[in-house]
Amino acid sequence: MVAYIGVRDIVRLIQRIGLESLLVELTGYIRHDFARWERFEKSERLATHSRDGVIELMPISDGALFSFKYVNGHPRNTANGKLTVTAFGVLADVESGYPLLLSEMTVATALRTAATSALAATLLARNDSTSMALIGLGAQAEFQALAFKAVMGIRDFRVFDIDPAAITKFRRNLEPTDITITEACSIENAVRGADIVTTATAAKMRADVLTPGMIQPGVHLNAIGGDCPGKTELHPDILRQARVVVEYPPQSRIEGEIQQLEAGFPVVELWKIVCGREEGRQTSDQVTVFDSVGFAIEDFSTLRLLHDLSTRSEDSAAIDLVPDLENPKDLYAMLTDVPDNGRATASLPSAPRF
Amino acid sequence: MVAYIGVRDIVRLIQRIGLESLLVELTGYIRHDFARWERFEKSERLATHSRDGVIELMPISDGALFSFKYVNGHPRNTANGKLTVTAFGVLADVESGYPLLLSEMTVATALRTAATSALAATLLARNDSTSMALIGLGAQAEFQALAFKAVMGIRDFRVFDIDPAAITKFRRNLEPTDITITEACSIENAVRGADIVTTATAAKMRADVLTPGMIQPGVHLNAIGGDCPGKTELHPDILRQARVVVEYPPQSRIEGEIQQLEAGFPVVELWKIVCGREEGRQTSDQVTVFDSVGFAIEDFSTLRLLHDLSTRSEDSAAIDLVPDLENPKDLYAMLTDVPDNGRATASLPSAPRF
Repeated sequence: MVAYIGVRDIVRLIQRIGLESLLVELTGYIRHDFARWERFEKSERLATHSRDGVIELMPISDGALFSFKYVNGHPRNTANGKLTVTAFGVLADVESGYPLLLSEMTVATALRTAATSALAATLLARNDSTSMALIGLGAQAEFQALAFKAVMGIRDFRVFDIDPAAITKFRRNLEPTDITITEACSIENAVRGADIVTTATAAKMRADVLTPGMIQPGVHLNAIGGDCPGKTELHPDILRQARVVVEYPPQSRIEGEIQQLEAGFPVVELWKIVCGREEGRQTSDQVTVFDSVGFAIEDFSTLRLLHDLSTRSEDSAAIDLVPDLENPKDLYAMLTDVPDNGRATASLPSAPRF
Repeated sequence: MVAYIGVRDIVRLIQRIGLESLLVELTGYIRHDFARWERFEKSERLATHSRDGVIELMPISDGALFSFKYVNGHPRNTANGKLTVTAFGVLADVESGYPLLLSEMTVATALRTAATSALAATLLARNDSTSMALIGLGAQAEFQALAFKAVMGIRDFRVFDIDPAAITKFRRNLEPTDITITEACSIENAVRGADIVTTATAAKMRADVLTPGMIQPGVHLNAIGGDCPGKTELHPDILRQARVVVEYPPQSRIEGEIQQLEAGFPVVELWKIVCGREEGRQTSDQVTVFDSVGFAIEDFSTLRLLHDLSTRSEDSAAIDLVPDLENPKDLYAMLTDVPDNGRATASLPSAPRF
């Protein structure tokens, strides 16, 4: 049997553990895996492009575990009430080749993106940071805010979105928490005086969400919206004057903010800062940028945490994705067994699991 | 929700439809997809090698549907009571990028391998074929026998395996069917006078299971055991004197029987015979070989059939692998929903489905 975490399961898991605790734990898992970066076999993504979007398979392995994520990107989906991006992933045991866990990753990807942002901020933002400007209040916004609250202790959020409904949604969702939300009348207004600025806008274009005049010394920019070719958020002159940190340069130079710059533009790899081989923030005046596009190791860490949580939980669900044969040479005998009238998922418990 | 076919489900499906009917239907699906071969975007397999085995992702798309298969190969697994090869697959909608079906494919791969063998035999074996020698009675054997019975009308089987337990297993499994099983004392004895010879041996080596002296004019050889580098079953001189048909030359020259021959050795592509662009068998005396290694289109066809069957069935199972949101821009709202105490697979029916 293969452990299974569906959409309802991950919602229950988050409700049981608490989103902030989960984000803190996930940040630790991602930090742990970035610290052993060189042990990972990093493959190319396998992308299948079509008129309306792309389907990608993102595999990675550390020699003991293998994971892949299936993820699509279809900008026109929202017109049909569907998500632009959905994802699921599998964690497998390298020694036997058997899958261990199948998990939804639409929600989990929002978790890992926020946790990775928070991890980078612990290394790049000023230690005395207390406020964050959040530009773009789409599907990622609440996860980003709560990751920075949980990991960095940020409680003062200045927010901006061109869509008033997005602001209402953000306020409603985070109303039960103890953060302070200040609605800004402009991006410039939101950014002014903020210790950290997160850009998470959705428009697929070369946008100058932030321009050099808005950038104050010592700020940390967490740029998560520029994540595919043709989609950026920062004016290139901001990058030229900053310490720019990326996950994996070959991918970031195609997909990240730095796609706007020459191929040799100097960047620092996040894993080297995690390992202590490179400095994070160097001075209190320095402008730092985490140019995040999302990398397979973050999905690996997430699946590893979810698998550990499902193992710890006594009543985790499982699906019969792989046969359990008495005689591995006799596959056919399965077909002649009298059916047990059991269910495809007969071993699932009937109580909520997390 | 994503349709789900687990191991128990596929067993029930086979029991409901009948293995032979399913193999006939699957042969038709594979024929249909081979006939539109040029419409498929054929990707490289993505292989992650380790000390004990390999994990592969095999994607393919026809522009409307996308599929991939996860498959491992771990020869040492049987020592631990595990299968050497397990597999599962996903069929997805290219227009939206949403997954449609998740299915086990350990059993399904045995079905598609047998159905592809039978398809090739309809084009390559003599029309008056009534008998088949079956060398190697491992996990594939019964599926091969019943595919040839259902599609080609073969009822006379002469079998050989070095392991007496394998022969006992084969007899016991197929005892309820109306085929005749004759146990041969040697490979030569099994092959003599057979219209078709299927080799499905397991040893990972360059074996000469068949040698030129055993080959009679007009025979069709269905070589399914030679399917990875270093594993072959036919003496190369058999190939040199035969019309050799393969699925996909770039892959077959690495994995198939023809890995023993020079890169330019002439082969015929199965899809061209299906389309009528090339001849199948040319004379009643000709020796034909289907040098089968398994190709992603066959998995695609299998997932397509399984999805059609799950759609036709009123009570097919589903899993919540992808969220169904009221507002695609408000992922976080899911987390604040009051849990329904439902199960991860609450929409699964409690009755057997197929």
